[in-house]
Amino acid sequence: MYKRTTRKFSEARKITFEKNIMKNAYSSVAVSYGDTKVFCTASIDHKVPPFAEDMNSGWLTAEYNMLPASTDRRKPRNIIKPDGRNVEIQRLIGRALRAAVNLKRFPGITIMIDCDVIQADGGTRTASISGGFLALKLAVDRLLKEEIIKKNPIVHQIASISAGKVHGQIMVDLDFMEDKNAEVDFNVIMTDSGDYVEIQGTAEKGIMTRENFDIILKYCEQGINHIFKQMEEVYSEI
Amino acid sequence: MYKRTTRKFSEARKITFEKNIMKNAYSSVAVSYGDTKVFCTASIDHKVPPFAEDMNSGWLTAEYNMLPASTDRRKPRNIIKPDGRNVEIQRLIGRALRAAVNLKRFPGITIMIDCDVIQADGGTRTASISGGFLALKLAVDRLLKEEIIKKNPIVHQIASISAGKVHGQIMVDLDFMEDKNAEVDFNVIMTDSGDYVEIQGTAEKGIMTRENFDIILKYCEQGINHIFKQMEEVYSEI
Amino acid sequence: MYKRTTRKFSEARKITFEKNIMKNAYSSVAVSYGDTKVFCTASIDHKVPPFAEDMNSGWLTAEYNMLPASTDRRKPRNIIKPDGRNVEIQRLIGRALRAAVNLKRFPGITIMIDCDVIQADGGTRTASISGGFLALKLAVDRLLKEEIIKKNPIVHQIASISAGKVHGQIMVDLDFMEDKNAEVDFNVIMTDSGDYVEIQGTAEKGIMTRENFDIILKYCEQGINHIFKQMEEVYSEI
Amino acid sequence: MYKRTTRKFSEARKITFEKNIMKNAYSSVAVSYGDTKVFCTASIDHKVPPFAEDMNSGWLTAEYNMLPASTDRRKPRNIIKPDGRNVEIQRLIGRALRAAVNLKRFPGITIMIDCDVIQADGGTRTASISGGFLALKLAVDRLLKEEIIKKNPIVHQIASISAGKVHGQIMVDLDFMEDKNAEVDFNVIMTDSGDYVEIQGTAEKGIMTRENFDIILKYCEQGINHIFKQMEEVYSEI
Amino acid sequence: MYKRTTRKFSEARKITFEKNIMKNAYSSVAVSYGDTKVFCTASIDHKVPPFAEDMNSGWLTAEYNMLPASTDRRKPRNIIKPDGRNVEIQRLIGRALRAAVNLKRFPGITIMIDCDVIQADGGTRTASISGGFLALKLAVDRLLKEEIIKKNPIVHQIASISAGKVHGQIMVDLDFMEDKNAEVDFNVIMTDSGDYVEIQGTAEKGIMTRENFDIILKYCEQGINHIFKQMEEVYSEI
Amino acid sequence: MYKRTTRKFSEARKITFEKNIMKNAYSSVAVSYGDTKVFCTASIDHKVPPFAEDMNSGWLTAEYNMLPASTDRRKPRNIIKPDGRNVEIQRLIGRALRAAVNLKRFPGITIMIDCDVIQADGGTRTASISGGFLALKLAVDRLLKEEIIKKNPIVHQIASISAGKVHGQIMVDLDFMEDKNAEVDFNVIMTDSGDYVEIQGTAEKGIMTRENFDIILKYCEQGINHIFKQMEEVYSEI
Repeated sequence: MYKRTTRKFSEARKITFEKNIMKNAYSSVAVSYGDTKVFCTASIDHKVPPFAEDMNSGWLTAEYNMLPASTDRRKPRNIIKPDGRNVEIQRLIGRALRAAVNLKRFPGITIMIDCDVIQADGGTRTASISGGFLALKLAVDRLLKEEIIKKNPIVHQIASISAGKVHGQIMVDLDFMEDKNAEVDFNVIMTDSGDYVEIQGTAEKGIMTRENFDIILKYCEQGINHIFKQMEEVYSEI
Repeated sequence: MYKRTTRKFSEARKITFEKNIMKNAYSSVAVSYGDTKVFCTASIDHKVPPFAEDMNSGWLTAEYNMLPASTDRRKPRNIIKPDGRNVEIQRLIGRALRAAVNLKRFPGITIMIDCDVIQADGGTRTASISGGFLALKLAVDRLLKEEIIKKNPIVHQIASISAGKVHGQIMVDLDFMEDKNAEVDFNVIMTDSGDYVEIQGTAEKGIMTRENFDIILKYCEQGINHIFKQMEEVYSEI
Repeated sequence: MYKRTTRKFSEARKITFEKNIMKNAYSSVAVSYGDTKVFCTASIDHKVPPFAEDMNSGWLTAEYNMLPASTDRRKPRNIIKPDGRNVEIQRLIGRALRAAVNLKRFPGITIMIDCDVIQADGGTRTASISGGFLALKLAVDRLLKEEIIKKNPIVHQIASISAGKVHGQIMVDLDFMEDKNAEVDFNVIMTDSGDYVEIQGTAEKGIMTRENFDIILKYCEQGINHIFKQMEEVYSEI
Repeated sequence: MYKRTTRKFSEARKITFEKNIMKNAYSSVAVSYGDTKVFCTASIDHKVPPFAEDMNSGWLTAEYNMLPASTDRRKPRNIIKPDGRNVEIQRLIGRALRAAVNLKRFPGITIMIDCDVIQADGGTRTASISGGFLALKLAVDRLLKEEIIKKNPIVHQIASISAGKVHGQIMVDLDFMEDKNAEVDFNVIMTDSGDYVEIQGTAEKGIMTRENFDIILKYCEQGINHIFKQMEEVYSEI
Repeated sequence: MYKRTTRKFSEARKITFEKNIMKNAYSSVAVSYGDTKVFCTASIDHKVPPFAEDMNSGWLTAEYNMLPASTDRRKPRNIIKPDGRNVEIQRLIGRALRAAVNLKRFPGITIMIDCDVIQADGGTRTASISGGFLALKLAVDRLLKEEIIKKNPIVHQIASISAGKVHGQIMVDLDFMEDKNAEVDFNVIMTDSGDYVEIQGTAEKGIMTRENFDIILKYCEQGINHIFKQMEEVYSEI
Repeated sequence: MYKRTTRKFSEARKITFEKNIMKNAYSSVAVSYGDTKVFCTASIDHKVPPFAEDMNSGWLTAEYNMLPASTDRRKPRNIIKPDGRNVEIQRLIGRALRAAVNLKRFPGITIMIDCDVIQADGGTRTASISGGFLALKLAVDRLLKEEIIKKNPIVHQIASISAGKVHGQIMVDLDFMEDKNAEVDFNVIMTDSGDYVEIQGTAEKGIMTRENFDIILKYCEQGINHIFKQMEEVYSEI
């Protein structure tokens, strides 16, 4: 039977956040889930897409990319031929972060969240969401402080973690090798009030019963609560 | 409070399948979920991607597209600028259908499932998965009959339906107007043995509690059972 | 000597039109020339290209595409690498349909004709032109009825058919196998008053004398008169 | 009524050919139709597309492009966004030149004809075909001389000219201003034995009767005979 | 030891300019450095990029391209896949020509210099800069004469030549074979007052000492003075 | 007159290297020139381009990219539309690093150097070259240690720095604000034996005399010697 050497099945890896890592970004965060490391930044543009303009609303969008050498085998830059996985992930990040804000509170402004993976060891999308949310929060603070917007648009805190079934065993926060062998693979995004923002799960290589699913949701809830604590700590640092 | 005029919240729209609709395709199916209509075809190629070749395995992939006039407002063909939503959907369809087969049983063969939306009224991705699965099944029958493969590679029957929360009410198989107003939007893919293949849900515009989620899963399970019956009937026609 | 099994050399295949096949399209037509089947739709946009704006004129343009499984051997979707044949055909369709209208009578409006081939068995471009013209006519009726435009912009009825030389024999409305073996291949587009809108012919694999050409034009004229009758019948249905 | 100042309606402009204008090309020709000037070259590649390989045949293809400053208003280079007109023209040139050769006589070899317009004043496609044919003929002579091929693959001499209806008057070899005002516009490609290779004509802005058409064909035949004489003269120079 | 057969190491090839070679261009020049031949044209657009608009300034940009048959081995047209070498060269040409003008003196106007290589035998970028400058000068004269601008924006005359080390020997104006064997390869652009506009040199295949460099600069200065004389002569012709 | 607040005109910013920063890369270096920070990695591929294969040689190539938030104003990712500046810089980096190695000593192997700018404050290309060289050196050590290659292919140590003329004053290692105001801008790449690998300089906004140039070369030589020391120190750390 598969065993984890240094942590329990219900235990996330070491999760850390560091803020203000890139001086030119409007806000910036380095997030680590174990050996997975992502740089998340927020940029501000005083222009919105036509549909947002029509609704007198702001907009929030996200981009996700991996440095070529962030993975075990060099990942070519996606020039011309778009990368389906990238597209899927950045749509997920954008959707999740939009669920965290009231777009009406920053009319005419686009917040762009960039998630650039420096080191990939499983969970880059969940790390991107949590780190992206902290970058968003720091950008919002700055927008308020600089009096560019008046009311805080953040309506929920959000964070994300994965869980899955590997060799028949449910476990949380899969690393690369676990993810590669997973029969079932879930990404869960929750608010600080315990509601769900997004649930995405696949059993591409196995079977997922309702029982599996209940444990997965329980583990993710615990993991996400832990992440909110880490995030809050770094956020409150001066 | 929102009311459906012609069906109950737990009731799917009229779901129909028609087979052999395109004479040049290896197999073909027209699937309708109410006014949503998708043409699903299977094509066979005696060539696989390098990674499948290395594993002496077959491959299955899917493409999803909408005819420009299938939607209310003409959808430009995605030339050059890739369409993120399309990419996301076709990755979902491919993943789901691969979960239904044992790739090892058609080494050297790629099965390509094309889902072309003729008319869109909500649920095009769930209709594509159910219709795509029937096209796959018909293609497999033909591969067996023509003795191109020896053992049936299908390991699960699969089908898919959506459910969501609209104006505070949980309901199944959303049409376009319901989908547009949905606070919570789920797509569920299940096997005929009642296990989950994929669960994808977003609460971009609202809140999703654990209770909501339980009802959603129940409605989807009922809907999917209904679809399996419709599919079986058409499949068995001579 | 080559013989046709079910029709004379001067006889077109069974040609049918069906209208209102796609509920979201502004107008829609399914056209069949034997086993060739094309869905033709018209969409309306209240915006014109700069050069049309400068002339206070409307614009009409066409797109042509084949579903991947419409042909014997799956045709990959033309993403990124444009498909020369498609480009050539849609330019032909657009030119022909523009010759049928007075663009000045719908200033500020673009009519977009989409021709999507569902099943290909020779003559997809001629079927697209005839079906596209009927879709155009139905769209114009609706524009007049909805009082978006005031005067009927249609100045000619148009229809199209092919003819060619196969195994030394001139014949009309070639199917796929005939087309593949044709030494000479012509597409003719005519108005209901018997004038020519476009003539396109190639002798890529043989010789075309002036005598061949005269028979080709005669056969096409007969075929086109037949098409106008079919079209008129469907058009007049309530 | 419209009058031509320096030539009769049935008279082509001054048509000249010059050979060996680019030392690195396998063969090269500068062709002029009045102020229209095109550089035509042939290049040789010892590789053919898969379908030609399967048939143990050679291949011939053509590309057409305009220098940005060849036209009155600078034409941007077509990077990324393909230019429909270019595509249509180069398909026409390739088709016409393939009709002039027996591909079986240069198995394994691709002849690539490049037509680069230096100065555009109407008729660039017809000039490209005539000039491209002379470049092809010179390349074939060299292939024979260098003993790369054994039998002359040229089965017809071909040349091309345009004719049209301008202000109600039929005339041959339209210049840019005539072309712009043409109600009917034809391009005719013929062999030296008086047969047709390709006929392409459009009446986008007017009406074309059978009578018009007969005069057009007569004028084109005369023009093409004249071109063959010019071509032969230059070809025979040492 | 390597010897040049017809010229000294310090001697440029025969350098010629010809003006007014393309009637539709705003100005045009054919420049030859030995067998290298480039057509340089200037086009005028009454529109500038946003950054130039903000500064109430004009703009000047350049494009560089090679005809496919200009080189020994046919160079495919760069469709879709951009050509790194082309990009680098056209950025160099643009930078050099902008250094020759005061952009403030043609506000709202973009001058576009196109350099199309007809025949390549080494030094196409230096020939493009010298020929591009003469085309620019002729365009400026016409802008002044047509009273589109009021003050001459040209602040320096510029010209360019290459030098390098081949088989251990420093020499100027390398031809293709010399360039191919060069250990050190420099391009120098100077003004008529003897100052430097751009110096670019690489020792990709060898070593470049300070001494080498001093001789290279001396040879280039001599070569450039010679070019200015040739250019002036042609410029002054009526 | 312009003054630098914290350093002399002949003095580079604080230049640091850090190695082994990304665990999945074959080798990795973070290089800083003041506030400019670049991650440089080497990846190994056991495949070379055809021309290298023909010569039984290895290959080395480089890519350069900026994280979107690395600059003051967010830089969009270059999807589809290639970025001319990026192309120019990565060609420079590749050329410079190839000059440092003997490609014959790693036949069949491609070394890919990626330079990803995390923070941009002037000099990103010179920092990329120095950091890229250290990453290359570390990769070569590993290739030797893992006995993938037998002889050290490095023939020169290389490093790079910029210098320029700002407000009439020559100075070394320009930061962003200095670079923006520079009349003359040089990038110099040298070997540890004091020879030149590449010199690139532009006087887009001013004049560059021979005297200027001599000072620039002197300052760069001093700066580069300093960089070699820093690099050696980090390289020797265990």
